[in-house]
Amino acid sequence: MIIGLASIAQNNYLNENAEEDEKIYKGVDHYEVKIFPNRFKSKKPQNVILLIGDGMGVAQVFAGITANRGKLFLDNFKSIGFSKTQSANNYITDSAAGGTALSTGVKTYNGAIGVNPDTIPVKTILEQAEEKGLSTGLVSTSSITHATPASFIAHQKNRNMYEEIAADFLKTDIDVFIGGGYKHFTRRKDGRNLVNELTLKGYKVLQDITEIEMINSGKIAGFTASEHNGRIEERKDMLPIATKAAINILDHNKKGFFLMVEGSQIDWGGHAGSTIYIVEDMLDFDKTIGKVLEFASKDGKTLVVVTADHETGGLALTGGEIKTGKVKGEYSTGGHTGVMVPVFAYGPGAEEFEGIYENTVIYDKIKSLLISQ
Amino acid sequence: MIIGLASIAQNNYLNENAEEDEKIYKGVDHYEVKIFPNRFKSKKPQNVILLIGDGMGVAQVFAGITANRGKLFLDNFKSIGFSKTQSANNYITDSAAGGTALSTGVKTYNGAIGVNPDTIPVKTILEQAEEKGLSTGLVSTSSITHATPASFIAHQKNRNMYEEIAADFLKTDIDVFIGGGYKHFTRRKDGRNLVNELTLKGYKVLQDITEIEMINSGKIAGFTASEHNGRIEERKDMLPIATKAAINILDHNKKGFFLMVEGSQIDWGGHAGSTIYIVEDMLDFDKTIGKVLEFASKDGKTLVVVTADHETGGLALTGGEIKTGKVKGEYSTGGHTGVMVPVFAYGPGAEEFEGIYENTVIYDKIKSLLISQ
Repeated sequence: MIIGLASIAQNNYLNENAEEDEKIYKGVDHYEVKIFPNRFKSKKPQNVILLIGDGMGVAQVFAGITANRGKLFLDNFKSIGFSKTQSANNYITDSAAGGTALSTGVKTYNGAIGVNPDTIPVKTILEQAEEKGLSTGLVSTSSITHATPASFIAHQKNRNMYEEIAADFLKTDIDVFIGGGYKHFTRRKDGRNLVNELTLKGYKVLQDITEIEMINSGKIAGFTASEHNGRIEERKDMLPIATKAAINILDHNKKGFFLMVEGSQIDWGGHAGSTIYIVEDMLDFDKTIGKVLEFASKDGKTLVVVTADHETGGLALTGGEIKTGKVKGEYSTGGHTGVMVPVFAYGPGAEEFEGIYENTVIYDKIKSLLISQ
Repeated sequence: MIIGLASIAQNNYLNENAEEDEKIYKGVDHYEVKIFPNRFKSKKPQNVILLIGDGMGVAQVFAGITANRGKLFLDNFKSIGFSKTQSANNYITDSAAGGTALSTGVKTYNGAIGVNPDTIPVKTILEQAEEKGLSTGLVSTSSITHATPASFIAHQKNRNMYEEIAADFLKTDIDVFIGGGYKHFTRRKDGRNLVNELTLKGYKVLQDITEIEMINSGKIAGFTASEHNGRIEERKDMLPIATKAAINILDHNKKGFFLMVEGSQIDWGGHAGSTIYIVEDMLDFDKTIGKVLEFASKDGKTLVVVTADHETGGLALTGGEIKTGKVKGEYSTGGHTGVMVPVFAYGPGAEEFEGIYENTVIYDKIKSLLISQ
């Protein structure tokens, strides 16, 4: 059961119809990668930044490595593990059950947002961080109400209940969230205008990424699109800028913070059978990782965990060239696959993420390092 | 340029013609997995056992995990890395260039056995171990003259020069080698009978795995097949038994030893587009890893490194069930792919193998830990 945008792509099996050209990324983009020091100020982290590349299997990472001429900011990560992504009811998870496993440590059914198999709400790591007095944030290139970010803050039996998910944001005191989804907060069947309610609660509600970029205190609700943000040529550096802005705001809290950042559209590239789309979003996600590492390496008390909820497309790299950044992908499915996905960790506690384990263990480890200390 | 058996499968594109049934492993096999202690007696290893799963990408590993109900001996490995497999002349390596990168630290052209891009021989890690007075061994389910084992002991400009490769074994003092390939030592164009020459050099030449199993000293040449060993139903536990026998022989040397073990046919399952073949050989390879860990965990001075030369088939796991061990694969190609492959390390020095790096770095690390100490 996969609902919402994912299922549209899934059912279309776009990979079979896609232009052959979409399978080849021609190597247009290229950026310098910095290697950061691997020494930290504490044994346990004060802050955790979890970055989720939706649909980012090992092949997606290597497509990005190839496209960027052999190097990514991910090269900074020495502690590597594998996450088993199976949901409670399916060998192949969707992003809702995948997100909920990471946010709550509970395996649930595909489509579930922050609820267990009996549809009972389970407290998320973000909510627990908030209860402990830490600051919290969410950033995504999709609508902020979409499955992955939603799983960290909402409790709904089905991922397509976007308006109910939006309303759940008001039940928390999240400090900053930036993504698409304005319409789910304003044009609602229940007549509520959640943007007005957010303003009354003390949030600055902003829709322009250049305005968001300049704020570095207070509470921010950033809506950079009515629904999902566009592809990279439209949204530009929205993800790295929003991530940097979120960190600027969250870093004021001496108790620490929890931030989840999603590179949402790596998945959509996989559904579309488009290597171009995958690489564009993989590189955008990696540049965002670079921004996070820039902060974390200076801060010395921030744990950075990069992983995926599942792999999408069954991507196989059937050709390429490191020198030019050209890479060719073939796709076995327009849907998700069941393969384990990589986990990369940097910062105090990073070595905890080594080995092969269930996706729920990522929650367990973050909780043990950030909440239960 | 991919030569030999690999190219036969490659050109057949067997995956497209394969019975649909071959894509589904039904979950017949299942064994208990033991977790070994993760504490060692030394900081640097006295012995190194390198296990190469030919064609074993992350999806092949997870097909095995699924088939064995969620657990493999690979779960014992905490230090994980990724190896970039590109050869000197191709984004997609063959097993010869892949093996030579691992055995010599040199990126070479596809087809090359222990020689650099100018066809000049490069000393292998096995030859260097021998020079240092360590004992050495090779074990494979393919012919022992096939690309991967050949790369560790022979120097030939082309992988299909099986008789020349066989003759190269006589130029070394390797202590034990076990695999197929009897005919390349006996039925030769040059009229030499290398089995007689091996006997004169002091080797016990044996062809029965149950006899090989009982030997635990002296020098052994074990030929368990005229060419390649058969599939698992024919060769049975040849690989774990041969590996255990090799360790028994090599462990007499107080200076230490180097052993390379190849699970050759995971690759052939990928070329054939057969999930059944892949899983059978993945589980056989994992059981062999179990035998190695049993020794290494007791010994405390042995570094175990498990990796692959490349991925084969572009395997995507499109369905499965952990409870029953059923797993379904789809294949994007009948050839190899360019994706980075996993590296798993256990024992003293294991943490050196964390991160993302070129395949040649695996040689560099082993050399630095075993030879240049």
